[in-house]
Amino acid sequence: MVSVASDSDLVERLRAIGPQRYHDKHPFHQKLVAGVLTEAQVRSWVANRYYYQKMIPRKDAYVLASLPTREHRREWISRVTDHDGDETRPGGTEKWFALGRAVGLTDDYLRSEVGVAPGTRFAVDAYVEFAHHKPWLEAVASSLTELFGPPVMAARVTAIVEKYPWIARGGLAYFEDRFDLAKHDADLALSWVVEAATTREQQDACVAALRFKCDVLWCMLDATALDCGVYR
Amino acid sequence: MVSVASDSDLVERLRAIGPQRYHDKHPFHQKLVAGVLTEAQVRSWVANRYYYQKMIPRKDAYVLASLPTREHRREWISRVTDHDGDETRPGGTEKWFALGRAVGLTDDYLRSEVGVAPGTRFAVDAYVEFAHHKPWLEAVASSLTELFGPPVMAARVTAIVEKYPWIARGGLAYFEDRFDLAKHDADLALSWVVEAATTREQQDACVAALRFKCDVLWCMLDATALDCGVYR
Repeated sequence: MVSVASDSDLVERLRAIGPQRYHDKHPFHQKLVAGVLTEAQVRSWVANRYYYQKMIPRKDAYVLASLPTREHRREWISRVTDHDGDETRPGGTEKWFALGRAVGLTDDYLRSEVGVAPGTRFAVDAYVEFAHHKPWLEAVASSLTELFGPPVMAARVTAIVEKYPWIARGGLAYFEDRFDLAKHDADLALSWVVEAATTREQQDACVAALRFKCDVLWCMLDATALDCGVYR
Repeated sequence: MVSVASDSDLVERLRAIGPQRYHDKHPFHQKLVAGVLTEAQVRSWVANRYYYQKMIPRKDAYVLASLPTREHRREWISRVTDHDGDETRPGGTEKWFALGRAVGLTDDYLRSEVGVAPGTRFAVDAYVEFAHHKPWLEAVASSLTELFGPPVMAARVTAIVEKYPWIARGGLAYFEDRFDLAKHDADLALSWVVEAATTREQQDACVAALRFKCDVLWCMLDATALDCGVYR
């Protein structure tokens, strides 16, 4: 007999993806928090992930365009301003530039995208395309990697402070400020997914979307690691 | 000899479209401001244009997603919040519901879209698709109907107050508040278009985009007029 899974089944299925596939399991991330990366390798990570930071507001604007109601948009739009900033707040991208400066990269270098490996670009572009063309429910579900982010960000900040003393502490504001934002955004997105994914087919699509997003983050670290010689 | 037109040529070409094709020339609009529409015909106009109001924030979110820089997005994003509202302001859509109530239509009736003629839907959907798939420069140029809007809005408000005393004045806040917003938005969009449209090909595409948008607004009034018997 086919039955529709309950809400809590779906939440369990989504949460189970983190321990299996979130990018904190990636060898590059493990080396980062172990403190064994060279300065050049840390810089490569910051330069590659700049492209992700740059494209996230565009991804979120595509989701914004596809949301079904004004009420949804009024909640989601803060994702764009959180990254882009406004008259009163610098925004996440500005903080990523600060991290760049803290590791010795100029804003112009990051903006030039010279340090972005092709594989990073392919993965990030795939994510933007996903948000552009998939139904809003799947696009929102794909954002749920933020469910797994906060503890990983906390461990990453601790590791950077302890193990890379050459990185100025002020450069870590991006992660410190994302902590609460990610938690808020993940809770909201999860509540929408649980409410809207009522059929087994929709729930499977949401699980697949979150796996896809984990693949995006994983491939970004693959490309970064290969680019900066972590595997040599 | 082929030469690139100057900025002022482009501005002239764009501005020249208004007197030819803006929807204040449409017979339905002329009857509206002449005060000869029946209550049912005014209600049909409000119900049809609700669909336009509803879709505009989605259109603007697609443009937001396609803009080239954070600086562009930080300017453009207010178009979405101006319509959707936020914690402190009701937003344009809420004011359109107020206009609906002032002419005797419930929020539920507008939301049901029962009063939206198929031709209105086709025209509005074509505009959203245009913003979704065209380069940002053309999408921004298509918004330049706002260059022609403010004086038409002013005349419309005056006409409604004088000639349709059965419409509560409070219902006109949408137009009164759009006046300054439209001027600001049009000036900004025009400055971007003038700056970015440097080749003759781009300038022609911008002129075509504005003509297209005039066609959208015109067809909405065609559909409305046919739907509510203005031509019978």
